[in-house]
Amino acid sequence: MTKIFSFTLKKTDNKARLGEVHTAHGSIQTPAFMPVGTQGTVKAMKLSDVKKSGAEIILGNTYHLMLRPGADLVAEFGGLHKFIGWDGPILTDSGGFQVMSLGGHGVATSSAARSNGSHQGLCKISDEGVEFSSHIDGTKHFLTPEKSIEIQHKLGSDITMIFDECVKYPATYDETKSAMERSLAWAKRSKNAFVKRDGYGLFGIVQGGVHEDLRKISAEELIKIEFDGYAIGGLAVGEGQEVMLQVLDYAPDFLPQEKPRYLMGVGKPSDIVGAVARGVDMFDCVLPTRSGRTGQAFVREKKRDGVINIRNAKYRNDSKPLDEKCICYACKNHSRAYLHHLHKAEEILAAMLLTEHNIFYYQDLMRDIRTAIEEKRFAEFAQEFFVKN
Amino acid sequence: MTKIFSFTLKKTDNKARLGEVHTAHGSIQTPAFMPVGTQGTVKAMKLSDVKKSGAEIILGNTYHLMLRPGADLVAEFGGLHKFIGWDGPILTDSGGFQVMSLGGHGVATSSAARSNGSHQGLCKISDEGVEFSSHIDGTKHFLTPEKSIEIQHKLGSDITMIFDECVKYPATYDETKSAMERSLAWAKRSKNAFVKRDGYGLFGIVQGGVHEDLRKISAEELIKIEFDGYAIGGLAVGEGQEVMLQVLDYAPDFLPQEKPRYLMGVGKPSDIVGAVARGVDMFDCVLPTRSGRTGQAFVREKKRDGVINIRNAKYRNDSKPLDEKCICYACKNHSRAYLHHLHKAEEILAAMLLTEHNIFYYQDLMRDIRTAIEEKRFAEFAQEFFVKN
Repeated sequence: MTKIFSFTLKKTDNKARLGEVHTAHGSIQTPAFMPVGTQGTVKAMKLSDVKKSGAEIILGNTYHLMLRPGADLVAEFGGLHKFIGWDGPILTDSGGFQVMSLGGHGVATSSAARSNGSHQGLCKISDEGVEFSSHIDGTKHFLTPEKSIEIQHKLGSDITMIFDECVKYPATYDETKSAMERSLAWAKRSKNAFVKRDGYGLFGIVQGGVHEDLRKISAEELIKIEFDGYAIGGLAVGEGQEVMLQVLDYAPDFLPQEKPRYLMGVGKPSDIVGAVARGVDMFDCVLPTRSGRTGQAFVREKKRDGVINIRNAKYRNDSKPLDEKCICYACKNHSRAYLHHLHKAEEILAAMLLTEHNIFYYQDLMRDIRTAIEEKRFAEFAQEFFVKN
Repeated sequence: MTKIFSFTLKKTDNKARLGEVHTAHGSIQTPAFMPVGTQGTVKAMKLSDVKKSGAEIILGNTYHLMLRPGADLVAEFGGLHKFIGWDGPILTDSGGFQVMSLGGHGVATSSAARSNGSHQGLCKISDEGVEFSSHIDGTKHFLTPEKSIEIQHKLGSDITMIFDECVKYPATYDETKSAMERSLAWAKRSKNAFVKRDGYGLFGIVQGGVHEDLRKISAEELIKIEFDGYAIGGLAVGEGQEVMLQVLDYAPDFLPQEKPRYLMGVGKPSDIVGAVARGVDMFDCVLPTRSGRTGQAFVREKKRDGVINIRNAKYRNDSKPLDEKCICYACKNHSRAYLHHLHKAEEILAAMLLTEHNIFYYQDLMRDIRTAIEEKRFAEFAQEFFVKN
């Protein structure tokens, strides 16, 4: 049976949506949180444990993987799934965000600097594409929409993202408009470069910053090009939750009901709940993994986005698990006191256990969100969730 | 049923011994390799995976644990087993070796420096005990035989080691003799301080360096004090395999047949095979875990002590597992190319996977050794093993 890339909208509860994305490597229940596997690994976790958490799809980063180990090597191994040992769906970003941050050691913020190609001397954006320096060895590379799509094809991504231009917040209206327009041109080139195969999809990315008119134009133009799903980009870049939710009050409404919607790089648990309430289906963020490596654990008792810092002296002799309702390995086997000790002693196991816990926490959150939508009580769930402890 | 600490010698094959050590937390098949859990964790591994490898006993370090998290805290949690979540036997060293290396930033080598208490200003050895500085915060501590045994009691070790004085190789005959004699005095004090409980044992440590007469005196005097097992200390400190095996040609013969024999801090696979051939039952070493963190993997194809350095460019596109006969997670799921990539990218998962592989490799080695003794073909096994590739 050939698998067609598609989206089933199973139920709605006000704007919140319960759905399922079908891909070549299986289905994803939405709303979904996708752990970030930047370099072909969800940091400090075995992929078997990522799977146990309930995660159905992970991310890969075109920018990192093109530089190391290289797309051709990955292709030689039959694609990223086989290379890293993950048989579920994989989404790859286009590299746009990274080349303009890591590759340029700073995101392009000045249109003047961009237009004369002198932006920090390391990341030159032209209509053709982006020239950047590798953060690993300084070598020069040139990424275009065509090249990005080709790399993602070699990686074998179930969900390919178009190559777009990112601007850092705050940017002027003109800067934002200019980047959005260039991104539309690149979206068309990305679509043309994409080799359609059953089960594999291409997502457009809506830009336009915090400007409703720009978001509307971006969405309308992308819809004309036709994509298998639509991402909302350019948020979670420093604008704060209130502003982000204001944009999400209208941005998802410009998108078709029958396609999945992905909010890139988001976010804190309350960001996710707020975005689901506004009609978003998919999320990714380094927060749970990065937090785990620095001793921050998401726990139910803290409510909302509360974390405990396990390095805090008060956990030195705390015999409770991180979270009594959590079923992760750390919560089933270890006390906060032990985890405190491991973090103070800078043991690798500390990063391993807290990362795994946080990924389980996020997947539990997504299960709770899906159940609440299923039971038509998402507004109640969200309200409760937003009550700060 | 109360468990008595005891040793069953099940079979011998020339000097090689197949046995079983019975402790409060279960039995250990010997010859046994004990993964080192210095700070209450076998670095970069979940204890559930340590168990899966077949390891039946792990080590803890008195020196590290007394400084962090502290013996009283561990006792408050019901002992080290409960604190770290390991229900099998645990052996703790006495801290002697560490205070004279880490605590003194160098092992005492000069009897003159030792006798005037000025050794490097950081580790002062007297007949009473050892004053040393914490490597964590520089605070001063004083460790005596009584204190070491008390700490190990609080940790709840199944196998407690006596507190002894260690000298670095090379040391003069007089230095070695002097340390051996002081260690005997400390052995008596350790025995007196040890609270005997069913299932918990105390091991003496034979010293005497590379001098047969000193080793003999040390063993005879320790046997008079009576211990539940005997360790051979002061080897694997730089003397080389040939010299070590020369000492092992006679040292184990000074010990009673009916008690387990433990060679401390050893070693490479060939060291272990050579020592088993000379009648040793138990081993510990940081080699498999430390090697894993630096990209070294023990593999069968390399024979003897050969490792592959996974960072080597030739593994960049090697689709084979580390070791085709290994059943560890890395070998079942990943290629050398992926592991190469992870190590080049300095991902935590790289350390995790190679450490686990190496621990599995060592436990496989011990299973092969036990089977060879069981089948009375250990000499053949050892000979084959010593043939360098």
